[in-house]
Amino acid sequence: MSEIPTLPAAVLNALQQIVGDDKVRLDDESRSTFGKDWTKVYAPSPSAIVFPKTIEQVQAIVRLANEHHIALVPSGGRTGLSAGAVAANGEVVVAFDYMSQISDFDPVDRTVVCQAGVITEQLQIYAEEQGLYYPVDFASSGSSQIGGNISTNAGGIKVIKYGMTRDWVAGLKVVTGNGDIVDLNRGLMKNNAGYDLRQLFIGAEGTLGFVVEATMRLSRQPGNLTALVLGVPEFSAIMEVLNTFQAEMDLTAFEFFSEKALQKVVAHQDLQRPFETEAEFYALLEFENNNEETEALAMTLFERCMEEGWVLDGTMSQSIEQLNNLWRLREDISETISQWTPYKNDISTVISKIPDFLTEVEAVVNKEYPDFEIIWFGHIGDGNVHLNILKPDHVAKDVFFEQCHVVSTWVFEIVEKYRGSVSAEHGVGMTKKAFLPYSRSETEIALMKQVKQVFDPNGVMNPGKIFD
Amino acid sequence: MSEIPTLPAAVLNALQQIVGDDKVRLDDESRSTFGKDWTKVYAPSPSAIVFPKTIEQVQAIVRLANEHHIALVPSGGRTGLSAGAVAANGEVVVAFDYMSQISDFDPVDRTVVCQAGVITEQLQIYAEEQGLYYPVDFASSGSSQIGGNISTNAGGIKVIKYGMTRDWVAGLKVVTGNGDIVDLNRGLMKNNAGYDLRQLFIGAEGTLGFVVEATMRLSRQPGNLTALVLGVPEFSAIMEVLNTFQAEMDLTAFEFFSEKALQKVVAHQDLQRPFETEAEFYALLEFENNNEETEALAMTLFERCMEEGWVLDGTMSQSIEQLNNLWRLREDISETISQWTPYKNDISTVISKIPDFLTEVEAVVNKEYPDFEIIWFGHIGDGNVHLNILKPDHVAKDVFFEQCHVVSTWVFEIVEKYRGSVSAEHGVGMTKKAFLPYSRSETEIALMKQVKQVFDPNGVMNPGKIFD
Repeated sequence: MSEIPTLPAAVLNALQQIVGDDKVRLDDESRSTFGKDWTKVYAPSPSAIVFPKTIEQVQAIVRLANEHHIALVPSGGRTGLSAGAVAANGEVVVAFDYMSQISDFDPVDRTVVCQAGVITEQLQIYAEEQGLYYPVDFASSGSSQIGGNISTNAGGIKVIKYGMTRDWVAGLKVVTGNGDIVDLNRGLMKNNAGYDLRQLFIGAEGTLGFVVEATMRLSRQPGNLTALVLGVPEFSAIMEVLNTFQAEMDLTAFEFFSEKALQKVVAHQDLQRPFETEAEFYALLEFENNNEETEALAMTLFERCMEEGWVLDGTMSQSIEQLNNLWRLREDISETISQWTPYKNDISTVISKIPDFLTEVEAVVNKEYPDFEIIWFGHIGDGNVHLNILKPDHVAKDVFFEQCHVVSTWVFEIVEKYRGSVSAEHGVGMTKKAFLPYSRSETEIALMKQVKQVFDPNGVMNPGKIFD
Repeated sequence: MSEIPTLPAAVLNALQQIVGDDKVRLDDESRSTFGKDWTKVYAPSPSAIVFPKTIEQVQAIVRLANEHHIALVPSGGRTGLSAGAVAANGEVVVAFDYMSQISDFDPVDRTVVCQAGVITEQLQIYAEEQGLYYPVDFASSGSSQIGGNISTNAGGIKVIKYGMTRDWVAGLKVVTGNGDIVDLNRGLMKNNAGYDLRQLFIGAEGTLGFVVEATMRLSRQPGNLTALVLGVPEFSAIMEVLNTFQAEMDLTAFEFFSEKALQKVVAHQDLQRPFETEAEFYALLEFENNNEETEALAMTLFERCMEEGWVLDGTMSQSIEQLNNLWRLREDISETISQWTPYKNDISTVISKIPDFLTEVEAVVNKEYPDFEIIWFGHIGDGNVHLNILKPDHVAKDVFFEQCHVVSTWVFEIVEKYRGSVSAEHGVGMTKKAFLPYSRSETEIALMKQVKQVFDPNGVMNPGKIFD
């Protein structure tokens, strides 16, 4: 850590007045920890970390920031992958770790009130204890916080059935950049009384206001989740498999990964191949196996796909242990390949264009960098693929990242051509800011900036994120 | 119709240039027809009706309106119930009847592109022809248009399973009040690249821009829909029934109506009572009866409710004809009671508060107007009830409506107390504008007005709707 950026003494005193002396930290370790997220591109350099305990304290901090033109950065579980919660320019970090209460559960409404700092897994366990289910789930559920999930509209592995975080927010309390508290939609299922401002704050990465509390919906617990892993000879067949199953069943997940990914996972984790047959790609389907007829239907559809040649082999989980092991084939990929210092990109197109999109990205990367190994996996059921390129051993890290920066531009040009998104689920933050125009028009970006002006006229809320 | 409000000759000429002479109408009949919606409170008085055929023509009209400060009112199927599409002040009506093309269906993405003027039923039939399903359905589906549905975030009878119109909009083309065309979200399922401006236009009642085209999602066709009608002795038992079923089954609908409503429907329509037992209330549940186990589960839950005393009697549909007849008991209420010139109100709270809310509204109305007959029905599964008060024969129409205006204030005070919505699914338009503060804070309304400034700086888009 470099030296502490200057914070006027009056501001520091006022912050200590608001949250208490012990809830303002200036030490190097705190500044390093709370000044960054999982992206390691920018060096953290916050001027202070404050830990409010109440909504009113957050409001007082925002009002103070407006008076003194101090930039604020919200900090949740710090698991973001786009540097949306990084304080690299002397900002004051507002960390929600002391606002982690769950309250007001109602079994009829199936809603529960969460402070911004509630951890995703905490909510999942709470829901389970009530005999219900919080379905938004992803690798970082053990650390990510609800406020951060909402601010990035987190997605994950069950989007095909349950949607994104957006779909589970029944009410939202926000402190706007003006320092106002707004209490949006208040848990209602049906409410057409004026603009749904709640939606604006979801996915706004804290640039319009800070989410301080949310009323979250819970769902019926799914019964007997069962996974099928199918070996597929070519990418276009994955689409046929998706079509075949979706026409007759409600799937809870539809993921894919490549043989290359599978080989690495099996070599480095304590896992078996799902079956001996090698296929270029694998589809992982999950469904609620609630009765024999559903299971029989799944088998019929599997056989139909085999007859058509879309599937070469397959296996179905018969226990929770088998279910978990099949899921690990997909979920352990990220951790497994991390030793190759991979370049990662999170992109989407409409589902039908994914095969052509992948082919085109592969072609350009293979042509320019034939020694780059590409690992594909992702949430194919919702058009979201994760592109991973492994660093060849003989290439130095900095050279590799420079080359990947060039690759990024090609990838985003292809994203633009296919009218896709430069950020499917990780948000824009700082790392994708320069690439936003590949997904959003000049007019849209101008409108976003004007909307920001309405909610944050002095530009104190997470400035420099999404756009400049 | 009174005399035609003055439209400057230059503007009229320019409009004729844009859409063609035959697509500008000034005659009384057109002005009367296209100047209003299903609310009959305000006398229509538009200065002209224009019928654009392309997005570019809509854009040219909006630009012209900005130049000359002409107010525009969008007109879809004109089935609105809050006067959101009424032109009462010499506005130019932009009617979307000549923009009714469906195109670009994709079976993998399960999306289809609709121009704003596509009729809901047209989309439902189109979906069916593709072996798919468009699930947003309501009484006016035969006339309402997609652009209007989106602008009012239309709900209907399947919200408990399928959500509102908002949930089916994968992409939105809008001409903003600035005259810009924005192409929002472009059909993607996952897209976290900046603010989701699409959401702002959904439910904005044309006050920020006019929806000109939408990419709509379609769903798997539900299988063997089956209805249960259950007689329930008191309102609180309806909640227990809802809980019991929702904990173990996915319902596609959960409606309710009162014995009073049932008696009127049976007396005036060609319909039988569902069973002889009289109950104070009836719940109508619908589910996909895909296999014997599901049907057996429904029967088990029904028996459990009988044992608990929450249900007095019940019947289950065994054919599509029976399904339709059970639905008519609920759906024919509106038409049946129309002969009593009913006062209507469309309100919501969170589901758990509905019983207390109903009791409180009944108490105040019965106390002040003991001869008013109250008919309740609605979408109890999503907290949305429709309050209907029948005009007593001996009370004159204008006296009745004056008294009901007083009732409205009481109802909205109770809505405010229960943190509900003054408009669950019909929007605000003009009829509920004065009551918006019962559901939205001063700060929220101020923010809405500033947001409107961003998208419609000259105030030409449906002015005087939602707020002044």
